Amino acid sequence: MSVISLNSYSLGRWIPPSGERQGLKSAVSGQVVAEIGSAALDFAGMADYARRVGGPALRKMTFHDRAFALKALAQYLNERREALYELSYETGATKPDSMIDIDGGIGTLFVYSSKARRELPDDRILTDGALEQLSRSGQFVGQHVATPLQGVAVHINAFNFPVWGMLEKLAPTLIAGVPAIVKPASATAWVAEACFRMVVESGLLPEGAVQFIAGSTGDLLDRLSGQDVVSFTGSAATAAMLKGKSAVIEKSVRFIAEQDSLNASVLGPDAAPGTPEFEAFIKEVHREMTAKAGQKCTAIRRIIVPQESRAAVIDALVARLERTVIGNPRDETVRMGALASLAQRSDVLEKASILGTEAKRIYGDPENFRVEGADAGEGAFVPPMLFSCEDLDAAQAVHAVEAFGPVSTVMAYRDLPHALALANRGEGSLVASVFTHDPAVARQAVLDAGAFHGRLYFANRDTGKEATGHGSPLPHMVHGGPGRAGGGEEMGGMRGVMHYMQRTAIQGSPDIIAGITQRYVAGASTFEAEPHPFRLAFGELAPGRTLWTAERTVTLEDIEHFATFTGDTFYAHMDEEAAAANPFFPGRVAHGYLILSFAAGLFVEPAPGPVLANYGLDNLRFMKPVSPGDSLKVRLTVKQKSRRNDEYGEVRWDVGVYNGEGEQVAAYELLTMNAM
Amino acid sequence: MSVISLNSYSLGRWIPPSGERQGLKSAVSGQVVAEIGSAALDFAGMADYARRVGGPALRKMTFHDRAFALKALAQYLNERREALYELSYETGATKPDSMIDIDGGIGTLFVYSSKARRELPDDRILTDGALEQLSRSGQFVGQHVATPLQGVAVHINAFNFPVWGMLEKLAPTLIAGVPAIVKPASATAWVAEACFRMVVESGLLPEGAVQFIAGSTGDLLDRLSGQDVVSFTGSAATAAMLKGKSAVIEKSVRFIAEQDSLNASVLGPDAAPGTPEFEAFIKEVHREMTAKAGQKCTAIRRIIVPQESRAAVIDALVARLERTVIGNPRDETVRMGALASLAQRSDVLEKASILGTEAKRIYGDPENFRVEGADAGEGAFVPPMLFSCEDLDAAQAVHAVEAFGPVSTVMAYRDLPHALALANRGEGSLVASVFTHDPAVARQAVLDAGAFHGRLYFANRDTGKEATGHGSPLPHMVHGGPGRAGGGEEMGGMRGVMHYMQRTAIQGSPDIIAGITQRYVAGASTFEAEPHPFRLAFGELAPGRTLWTAERTVTLEDIEHFATFTGDTFYAHMDEEAAAANPFFPGRVAHGYLILSFAAGLFVEPAPGPVLANYGLDNLRFMKPVSPGDSLKVRLTVKQKSRRNDEYGEVRWDVGVYNGEGEQVAAYELLTMNAM
Repeated sequence: MSVISLNSYSLGRWIPPSGERQGLKSAVSGQVVAEIGSAALDFAGMADYARRVGGPALRKMTFHDRAFALKALAQYLNERREALYELSYETGATKPDSMIDIDGGIGTLFVYSSKARRELPDDRILTDGALEQLSRSGQFVGQHVATPLQGVAVHINAFNFPVWGMLEKLAPTLIAGVPAIVKPASATAWVAEACFRMVVESGLLPEGAVQFIAGSTGDLLDRLSGQDVVSFTGSAATAAMLKGKSAVIEKSVRFIAEQDSLNASVLGPDAAPGTPEFEAFIKEVHREMTAKAGQKCTAIRRIIVPQESRAAVIDALVARLERTVIGNPRDETVRMGALASLAQRSDVLEKASILGTEAKRIYGDPENFRVEGADAGEGAFVPPMLFSCEDLDAAQAVHAVEAFGPVSTVMAYRDLPHALALANRGEGSLVASVFTHDPAVARQAVLDAGAFHGRLYFANRDTGKEATGHGSPLPHMVHGGPGRAGGGEEMGGMRGVMHYMQRTAIQGSPDIIAGITQRYVAGASTFEAEPHPFRLAFGELAPGRTLWTAERTVTLEDIEHFATFTGDTFYAHMDEEAAAANPFFPGRVAHGYLILSFAAGLFVEPAPGPVLANYGLDNLRFMKPVSPGDSLKVRLTVKQKSRRNDEYGEVRWDVGVYNGEGEQVAAYELLTMNAM
Repeated sequence: MSVISLNSYSLGRWIPPSGERQGLKSAVSGQVVAEIGSAALDFAGMADYARRVGGPALRKMTFHDRAFALKALAQYLNERREALYELSYETGATKPDSMIDIDGGIGTLFVYSSKARRELPDDRILTDGALEQLSRSGQFVGQHVATPLQGVAVHINAFNFPVWGMLEKLAPTLIAGVPAIVKPASATAWVAEACFRMVVESGLLPEGAVQFIAGSTGDLLDRLSGQDVVSFTGSAATAAMLKGKSAVIEKSVRFIAEQDSLNASVLGPDAAPGTPEFEAFIKEVHREMTAKAGQKCTAIRRIIVPQESRAAVIDALVARLERTVIGNPRDETVRMGALASLAQRSDVLEKASILGTEAKRIYGDPENFRVEGADAGEGAFVPPMLFSCEDLDAAQAVHAVEAFGPVSTVMAYRDLPHALALANRGEGSLVASVFTHDPAVARQAVLDAGAFHGRLYFANRDTGKEATGHGSPLPHMVHGGPGRAGGGEEMGGMRGVMHYMQRTAIQGSPDIIAGITQRYVAGASTFEAEPHPFRLAFGELAPGRTLWTAERTVTLEDIEHFATFTGDTFYAHMDEEAAAANPFFPGRVAHGYLILSFAAGLFVEPAPGPVLANYGLDNLRFMKPVSPGDSLKVRLTVKQKSRRNDEYGEVRWDVGVYNGEGEQVAAYELLTMNAM
């Protein structure tokens, strides 16, 4: 393999390494794989280019436009992932390790694309939460909205997942409509650069949407403003240095940090040896210790078990660790590859020796272990190391020092509150897992420990094979944690998109809010026109377009007939005296479902047309009882055109049912599927 | 008035001033009103007491328990507000100014109490967002929840609103279940202390829930952890100093800042002289310049008007300013009182002179203005000062220097994009207003300027008298802004509560999620038991309790009969050939409303009982068509007991309608009101 020159991508051009170049070595062979150096970059120019060219181009697109671009990008990368696996071996990763990184990253793009099309409007402004009534008559209302920040996102990634780390930050950023400058960790930057090169070559993103720094970020962080975001994954020390920069503090630059974390896994009090939960726990702890050679920010560092199961846990874990083959990741028998670099190896050994002052090493000798298919003296290999801490009251380091490798410590607890208190002693983590079949244990874990953990993972016999694992951040769920874990939050579906948008409270008249959000709101102007709105195609409908129906009287015979026909003979419809005794009714009243059914009878257009189906109904509230003799009349208003594909579009209608006095008796939203 | 000794409230005891005491002077007379000093406080002990005593007591309560306590507290303060008005005059505030502070603060407690009871569960764990399907079979799912942080909230308040500033931070903190330490600004601390004393005397909050520092926070911020929150309102310089503290950075302490802001008000291009919007604009700018003598973080500092209306705006504003009586706030003819202190007066004059280097002062001479009923030489009086900036391209200070008093600058724009670009040059503000009757102008303002402003306020002839004003933060809407405004966010209804809670991603089996959240979720276990659940009182129902009904066949006659009866003769029900041509149907199908009606007929218990009314329905989706001859069967499951008062409780039911093959054809949630 020849040495790869890692280029940066700045202002739309590839820039070769410059200044003091650094050689990057294979974790397996110790040979130089790539060289890196970024002295020639104009960092202020890059930020300016992103804001001036990339931002406006992205903001012209709707959320759905951006989501479709992301999906196409995911497909493009998916077809080229073999090339990335190949490069990934040199980072020490086995094929399954690389799949977490590469397939996991591409999968995140797919999920973000589909969630964005399902959960965000096909528009450039996102509404956030419900309309707020701010005045008595309803002529002054509030609505929160979100719009893209008009700055640049700086993504500073960790070395352990060069592809996933880049794509899980890019997905929500691009959905939000914000350009990014990506800075991968140098140690594995050749994999990130290869993937980034594919992103550029795909031509699927607008100019200026993404740039790339192979090397140091120079003075970039000193150039940031209050419209910019830094999203950082790495060590607490580096995070503190960057967060403390005066530009970051003084300009209120958003800073999302995901840093150290001493994640715990708790074997529940109910999960004795022999239970499916005990088996699952042993498997998962072993997997988390050895996958990616323990270089996962979510890896299990603290193994918290009932005192009475301690010996059984240690025996079962040691038996599995003894069967774990370490060596060249290209070798298919190898279960655990190398650490990412010799520097990491030194760091892990140093941290392990600190743990050794408080805990006994009961498995794994770094001076004496077997390496398959590689030279242990050249590569960054270590054995898995299992510690056991006995003096838990005195111990500090086991809760505070993260050896970022295949290193974990067993701790034995007295009872559940003790177990959860131990988990919390990590002072904030990305994830803790609890292996239990008892929902009461799970609820106690959330009440006692929720505040200290960004994610709580409960595994048991029911979740079985479908469970995604303690260590897997999913795009649907937030990833991040309080305190030591950095206080940041990433992903979590559309929550992650909000980090790159500004929430703004909008106040004004209903017409102003409707004009801003392109959706009808209560109190806004409506308009009636021929023909019946059900005769119009999706593209011809506009929010506010309204049909007022004819009137229909509800008779006592209607109510009795409906009761007999449907079987709904509830006393409020059938028995005058009993109905009048009910605190909510004046006497016998019409069924709610009768009101809905008559309303449909009033507004439906019977002949075939663009409305293909009524497939749902939301937020129905019956506001006033309807008595025999009352008349009904319906207002049907286009509220919003929510989404579309090539053939159909979804229309949300605001429906009001009114009585003869003009009082509203029912309100709901109707969903129809319309032809384009 | 004798000099008030301002006490702190620490570890449940009142502590008199100590160490170097500072005398606080009346803004009107210059006489010493109070003395302050906090040297004797044990700050680490206060934080520990909050975490050890206050937090656990608050966390034992449900959200609704806390909301009821807040309501009682609001009522208690409301009966005692006259005493606070009296103290408030000495801060330079007029009666209307004090009402913004005191009534506004109490109103915020009321709104938080009622919103929390409406929007949060009567539980100790808050669910956040929808259930996430994480596996094919549904046996592994995700749910975000939020639980109270287990630390302490440190509230550092500004001098301008000693009561509102305290209560608007306390309301969401206490609803969240987090104890607080309140540190008011010294300049007006005698008002805050008096109000805080009422809070303690009310006895309505659990021990340790609140503490109070009259004086400096000492080393308190160095004692904070990742479970703690600082919520700060004040100057950018102080915010930067506090945010940069190593404990704050290294422990990832949450820091909410609301600091400087050069808020703009834009007169829309459509709002020419003579329009109602022009009139409203002049009134509002004048009000924002003079209310609270311009000492509002939301006050209008930049008056952005069409070039062609500049002269008319200046004439109209000057005419109003000339009629504004300045003087002793106890005098009822006085419209504008004093600044809060002589130090503020010096600061405002200094900042005004900086503005004077870029803009011309066209109204208000601090050397020569009339003061009614007070000695201009002793009190902190200044006149309103209006500037006009002509060289907008060169100007910097007018967008960056905040004179925190009755000072504002007129700027003239060419077109709407220019106006919005000027508004954005403040580099982040709490609020900008736009006076326009054109929804297209409003939408453009959100697209171009939303990212720079925490709130956008649109006023016009429709919002009229009901509009709450450019300068009023409301508990329903977020208050805060990006960049220069500090990047923080407060209030915004339940959004503000989330700042004091940790969001945690929960993953597990449906039974585990149901056990944690005390609500049935799809896939969780259910149980059937006698009697029919509609025969049980609210207190006897438990999530998961289920009724499976008998079956009923839907015949073609039923469909035709329903069509004729209701008038809903849509072709999909009536015309086999046309229905089969529809992409979603196999042929004629039953009406959705017929399915709903038959379902109700199957599960309703006719006789009077604890279920008083079905008053709503949510999230109805028709999942499969029902053809003539299909049978229907219903599952009715208690999903959640959402809220209650003394007489009734709200029950949410999960309803599934299934066909003869056991396939689900419809899903929805039903709401009933049940007797206790």
